[in-house]
Amino acid sequence: MKALENKILSDGVVLEGNVLKVGSFLNQQLDVDFIMEMGEEISRIYNNDGATKILTVESSGIPIAFAAGVKIGCPVVFAKKNKSANVSGDVFCSSVYSFTHKTTNNIIVAKEFLSSDDRVIIVDDFLANGKALIGLIDIVKQAGATLIGCTCAIEKGFQHGGDELRKQGIRVESLAIVEEMNSSGIYFRCN
Amino acid sequence: MKALENKILSDGVVLEGNVLKVGSFLNQQLDVDFIMEMGEEISRIYNNDGATKILTVESSGIPIAFAAGVKIGCPVVFAKKNKSANVSGDVFCSSVYSFTHKTTNNIIVAKEFLSSDDRVIIVDDFLANGKALIGLIDIVKQAGATLIGCTCAIEKGFQHGGDELRKQGIRVESLAIVEEMNSSGIYFRCN
Repeated sequence: MKALENKILSDGVVLEGNVLKVGSFLNQQLDVDFIMEMGEEISRIYNNDGATKILTVESSGIPIAFAAGVKIGCPVVFAKKNKSANVSGDVFCSSVYSFTHKTTNNIIVAKEFLSSDDRVIIVDDFLANGKALIGLIDIVKQAGATLIGCTCAIEKGFQHGGDELRKQGIRVESLAIVEEMNSSGIYFRCN
Repeated sequence: MKALENKILSDGVVLEGNVLKVGSFLNQQLDVDFIMEMGEEISRIYNNDGATKILTVESSGIPIAFAAGVKIGCPVVFAKKNKSANVSGDVFCSSVYSFTHKTTNNIIVAKEFLSSDDRVIIVDDFLANGKALIGLIDIVKQAGATLIGCTCAIEKGFQHGGDELRKQGIRVESLAIVEEMNSSGIYFRCN
């Protein structure tokens, strides 16, 4: 999505440790019109694929998932993060390691909100090592639902999480793929 | 908002400990079209008040704040919860006690996203004791911004947080106010 690449170039800030800050439009302040455009792009990508649910994980995945839900016309379900090991039986639960926070969270979704009748698009803000997506895909499998594909706003191609999933035959269509970033610039993967 | 009262009556579940579960449309599964209608209602309430920012707190405040931002046409900023006491100097920070989780969180907003030029509407999903709103109002004050008003989707009138704020002269306009709820029913405050 060319407009997102341009937005990253104009507003993104590269910090040490492979951190790309996009807090001004995606992560803490939300440029709502631009995020709705991203939702429109996701709708275009999965046109006619019959999605019945968008699945994301709190917190910063929620806005773009919401926009996708509005444009596609289906509900959004967001997994909750739960540090507690005590999880009741009426939820789907998967374990996700966060490289950013160096912690493991359970992510949980109440069973009533995903079923084997569902056709699911997973949406998130960032894709780096792919651990969050793997947890969400696990929840889709536990529900017996059909996974249509995964879309993240910004994929860090150099961390290979997206390519690992593609090798497994999972459809991963990120809106922008950063191939390299450093103090001198941000470079995108060519389509 | 009559449509929200009807939705609470049809889909809400009253649990012990004054818990009202609305996970099927507001808290875990998001009825995106209905949440956009709530955004439209918030836009109608604050028509011509010149809002420049919607402020909320992660996670479940984000969808309704996002919808309000789309309908009003201004960015959304969401405060992040941070259990750590270590907060750097470039953020506004306030302390919020959660009766639900019996923990105290810092809520933080990067200073770059709120300024004295801003006219702010605070939006959240639930208003009970009002502790989250008080923290968000504190952040608006720290920024020197102007608070236009606060709107929560569902106010638990019997917990009096909203009325305490109104006594202080703060404009609090909830979309639905539950005056009483028990195993036999849910009763709303008359307008």
